[in-house]
Amino acid sequence: MSAPTADRAVATGSDSSDTTQVVHGLAKKARTASRSLNGLTTADKNAALLAAADAIEAAADTILAANQRDLDRGAADGIEASLMDRLRLTPERVTGIANGLRQVAVLPDPIGEIVQGKTLPNGLQLRQVRVPLGVVGIVYEARPNVTVDAFGIAFKSGNAVLLRGSSSAADSNAELVRILREVLSANGITADAVALLPSESRTSVTALIQARGLVDVVIPRGGAGLIEAVVANATVPTIETGVGNCHVYVHALADLDVATRVVLNSKTRRPSVCNTAETVLVDAAVAADALPRITSVLQAQGVVIHGDETGMEPATEADWSEEYLSMDIAVKVVDGIDAAIAHIDTYGTGHTEAIVTADLAAADEFTRRVDAAAVMVNASTAFTDGEQFGFGAEIGISTQKLHARGPMGLPELTSTKWLVWGNGHVRPA
Amino acid sequence: MSAPTADRAVATGSDSSDTTQVVHGLAKKARTASRSLNGLTTADKNAALLAAADAIEAAADTILAANQRDLDRGAADGIEASLMDRLRLTPERVTGIANGLRQVAVLPDPIGEIVQGKTLPNGLQLRQVRVPLGVVGIVYEARPNVTVDAFGIAFKSGNAVLLRGSSSAADSNAELVRILREVLSANGITADAVALLPSESRTSVTALIQARGLVDVVIPRGGAGLIEAVVANATVPTIETGVGNCHVYVHALADLDVATRVVLNSKTRRPSVCNTAETVLVDAAVAADALPRITSVLQAQGVVIHGDETGMEPATEADWSEEYLSMDIAVKVVDGIDAAIAHIDTYGTGHTEAIVTADLAAADEFTRRVDAAAVMVNASTAFTDGEQFGFGAEIGISTQKLHARGPMGLPELTSTKWLVWGNGHVRPA
Repeated sequence: MSAPTADRAVATGSDSSDTTQVVHGLAKKARTASRSLNGLTTADKNAALLAAADAIEAAADTILAANQRDLDRGAADGIEASLMDRLRLTPERVTGIANGLRQVAVLPDPIGEIVQGKTLPNGLQLRQVRVPLGVVGIVYEARPNVTVDAFGIAFKSGNAVLLRGSSSAADSNAELVRILREVLSANGITADAVALLPSESRTSVTALIQARGLVDVVIPRGGAGLIEAVVANATVPTIETGVGNCHVYVHALADLDVATRVVLNSKTRRPSVCNTAETVLVDAAVAADALPRITSVLQAQGVVIHGDETGMEPATEADWSEEYLSMDIAVKVVDGIDAAIAHIDTYGTGHTEAIVTADLAAADEFTRRVDAAAVMVNASTAFTDGEQFGFGAEIGISTQKLHARGPMGLPELTSTKWLVWGNGHVRPA
Repeated sequence: MSAPTADRAVATGSDSSDTTQVVHGLAKKARTASRSLNGLTTADKNAALLAAADAIEAAADTILAANQRDLDRGAADGIEASLMDRLRLTPERVTGIANGLRQVAVLPDPIGEIVQGKTLPNGLQLRQVRVPLGVVGIVYEARPNVTVDAFGIAFKSGNAVLLRGSSSAADSNAELVRILREVLSANGITADAVALLPSESRTSVTALIQARGLVDVVIPRGGAGLIEAVVANATVPTIETGVGNCHVYVHALADLDVATRVVLNSKTRRPSVCNTAETVLVDAAVAADALPRITSVLQAQGVVIHGDETGMEPATEADWSEEYLSMDIAVKVVDGIDAAIAHIDTYGTGHTEAIVTADLAAADEFTRRVDAAAVMVNASTAFTDGEQFGFGAEIGISTQKLHARGPMGLPELTSTKWLVWGNGHVRPA
């Protein structure tokens, strides 16, 4: 069963200027919607989120049918098995999506928080108040659950959201957004608080990232190529996420049991995600002991080792930059902490960097000097994650320094404004 | 006396690809310098700032001589009187520049602040620590004092800074930067923490805003044209500053004495700065009383009124968008608070918006619904200012919603990183 086009908030532009008009039309509606979202109470928002969760579970059949159309099209197009798996919804996954909204409903509402405030010497009362960003655009890849997760986080933080998902998930996404819009309307909230953008071509991405004055921020979630294309061509502010060439440095004074355990978990827990370790830097002072222990445990788990030592796949310069996202890891022997930090400084992407050491001075120096969103001491890189950090929900992991750095939860989707109350105050010359 | 070229950290590129190379070379050095700045203590930084203040006062003669060369060139080029005034240094202004550094030295150091922290259920210790942004680029116009002010704020917050000033102030800026670099070296700090970029052409601006991976943020300070050009062409993150089409809304229940005082101060205190009011919105309910009172007081001070009422300069659509920055103001009669907010929503630049009212509900509604960096109740728009807000120093007023909004002090030139300390923690599957 296909949803009526009008309800899907998607039009199929016949050429790129049509698509641009469609995107900017939806962005204008989203901007208007965002003004009214700022007037909703936390109770209003939570009620809508819980109603959306119930509606998604109740509509599992139509969601799974839409998903099956995506899967059939994917099979006909011969897309690869891992992508098919990410695309596939099951009754359990639909329940998981609904439960994600319920989790967001119980999170604290960041809007209205007084970040700071004071009374100035002249009696003016100053408050810096947390407010929504306004209109948030998300560009993402295959998983249909991101459609609902992103809506939930954006909506709870008071933002309207424009979703540009993958064309491979077009039917699933359209059905999910149709349900979300229906629930908003039923709850007296403008349906334009969420809209799905056309996904047939890159034109809709370009239109979104150049909708200056209509869209407040665009967050690309996906591979390095997508993120680079978005950041390079955007005139709207963007937040870079998720590209992680993460390192584990095994220091001269590392406990080698800890080193082995941390490296193994950092690489093999989920090799396809951005916080996986891609290079191990082993201090020359312990290389003779550490290298065979670490590599044998990795190899026993099926990890391919790239490096300059015997028994490894010969490494080229490209291996130090490579974000494998697979059961591969590069290994390099480095001459002390300065060389380790210099290597990370050259090849790291500012995501997550770890040191294994029993030496306090080394831990201090590494955490101070390494420039990354997260710096671990004797802990797996896999901990860089909004849920692990206790945020309850995550819209992505920022690898830039402006606005937000590291896992982004609800407060990272907000801005602030200054309220200044007086009683006729004027400023002296 | 002209400073030696090498010390000025400026080269004069013979063509635009040379200039780009020069800028990127200075940016690379600044990036290296930024790594070492993060290791300085607050005491180290304050000592260098105080030494720089003393050095600037001691070198007043060479600074004034360099400034005279700029003034002579400006006179020969026939630049306008107001620009000449902004360019001109005097012994008192040199002392003012030095005192600005002394003020920054006594401000709290934002670096190293623990923004938040906790111990996770698994025992991992999490701290979010304030760190420098890294390399900050500032693009600005005539005033030579900005050269030193921007260095002071960037340096105290642990950043290296690339300064791209106006070619009209080239000699003054070069001499000031020469002194700053000399003081840094004398204090055992790398001189590359501050550098002046070539200013002969826009090429250096383009090179700066496209130095991705070398420069962490560029802040344009100047007119709307400069800011628009920077934001539209930048691949480095930017922070928009200072374009202010600010409104004062005189509500139906305004005290008209307060309204007159606030409008007069908002417009005439310093008409050339970004927080000046450019349009007065007068509620139709009080227009008969309010209009003659407000306009007569403004006209008595020499303000030209643009509007649709008799005795005004006829207004066109352009007047509602115009940032006059002069003794001009637009006046419009609006039909209630919704019309006032809709007008602001259409023409405002998100800088500062004010309401004059004795009615609490109207004040609440206006502050909640108006989307701007600062929203004033019964107070002059002139209060949007870092010094007035008690920040002690200001690098600009952000009119964007990402990262920083409103006056930016030291903390707004910082980022954060997460430190995660464990004792061999690995994440379960």
